[in-house]
Amino acid sequence: MKEAKIEVCFSPALFPFYENHEATVVVTDILRASSAIVTAFMNGVDRIIPVGTLEEAQKYKSMGYMVAAERDGIVRDFADFGNSPYNFTPDRVKGKEIVYSTTNGTNAIHLASTGKQVLIGAYLNLTAVADHIKRAGRDLLVLCAGWRNKFNLEDTLFAGALAELVLQDSRYHTICDATLGSMDLYDAARVDMMGYIEKVAQRHRLKKNNLDDVIGYCHETDRTDLIPVLEGDSLVALRNSK
Amino acid sequence: MKEAKIEVCFSPALFPFYENHEATVVVTDILRASSAIVTAFMNGVDRIIPVGTLEEAQKYKSMGYMVAAERDGIVRDFADFGNSPYNFTPDRVKGKEIVYSTTNGTNAIHLASTGKQVLIGAYLNLTAVADHIKRAGRDLLVLCAGWRNKFNLEDTLFAGALAELVLQDSRYHTICDATLGSMDLYDAARVDMMGYIEKVAQRHRLKKNNLDDVIGYCHETDRTDLIPVLEGDSLVALRNSK
Repeated sequence: MKEAKIEVCFSPALFPFYENHEATVVVTDILRASSAIVTAFMNGVDRIIPVGTLEEAQKYKSMGYMVAAERDGIVRDFADFGNSPYNFTPDRVKGKEIVYSTTNGTNAIHLASTGKQVLIGAYLNLTAVADHIKRAGRDLLVLCAGWRNKFNLEDTLFAGALAELVLQDSRYHTICDATLGSMDLYDAARVDMMGYIEKVAQRHRLKKNNLDDVIGYCHETDRTDLIPVLEGDSLVALRNSK
Repeated sequence: MKEAKIEVCFSPALFPFYENHEATVVVTDILRASSAIVTAFMNGVDRIIPVGTLEEAQKYKSMGYMVAAERDGIVRDFADFGNSPYNFTPDRVKGKEIVYSTTNGTNAIHLASTGKQVLIGAYLNLTAVADHIKRAGRDLLVLCAGWRNKFNLEDTLFAGALAELVLQDSRYHTICDATLGSMDLYDAARVDMMGYIEKVAQRHRLKKNNLDDVIGYCHETDRTDLIPVLEGDSLVALRNSK
């Protein structure tokens, strides 16, 4: 029986030390990019093109694309809208191609592209992502987008929740301290997730800009079975199970 | 009243994002470099010269220095001894200058040297380090040596223990997710520290090489008030309180 391992990488800057070409890489940025991307697919977006720099985003804008772009939680003036999942409404995104650039999340997606398959994970599609990983049976590497390459708690808790589900499959094991730590933190937080999230730094950043209305929504579990997957340079809804 | 902040950096590779020229930087590598360094001072070493590369260590050896050097837990053949705290016995180290090179710890010390003051922290001198930090009143940055730039649990737990003690001083605060996470993990581990340490990756690495005899010792608290401090290129015992 094939043995598969689980690892968690807490920062894009640590990715070179965790890189695994055979792994399913799950990129997460709970507050708010990965929650927003999953929401966009729930609302019928056809394709999301993640771009790292604002210059690229602006170039796409001048080519006629609809662009979502923010830095530090603030929508950029050339963009159609920003990073709140509530922005990705059906009337705006259904059947469309959207270009998306955020402070942390979109760069993490590009980094992850050396993996065998790259998925976008959020609480909104948690169980679907876990089930897909187990079906594929490959190593799992969770890449937390973090905050400007620093560790953050909200992505770590998600990594712990995902690792716990995948470890229910006996083919999976972990000797990764970051995975073990994530699961223990998720264990400490889960009894009162919203109380725990009160203390994380990103919650304070969002609150300062009156953007904290989405925190509850971004921690709702299993609202969809849709999984965004990287296909070439863009994200599409996963169609098959491997 | 001056406000001082606490941050924890989980990996030398993340240090650029946490660097703070005004901070007291505490470097920790619980299994085993920082525990070994503190032990050497308990046993009367005069000075420890941390060097990053084995080539440097070998050069010092050819100049007549006593050299402790290991990689991946294994003592190098040109060295006098390796990285176990038990190697730094009074008959070997008392009144001596020792050159020391390890897989993770000694490079972390060099990185940290951009801080205002660099201390070596271990459980063995935990309270003394916390008290000194509070007396100095500067920001605290804990630099975990990690394992080949990956996150590790044993250094993180120590960071949580230290942060908890320093936060008892009301001038200190933290909005750093890594600090909050470290404290929560320390809280989860403290009731049965040796049981918790059973699962960390470094324990398995040490056990594989029959080097795990020191794990209990490295988690003994407050065996000394001595604090190794970086002075120029070498570590000496801290003499005054600021």
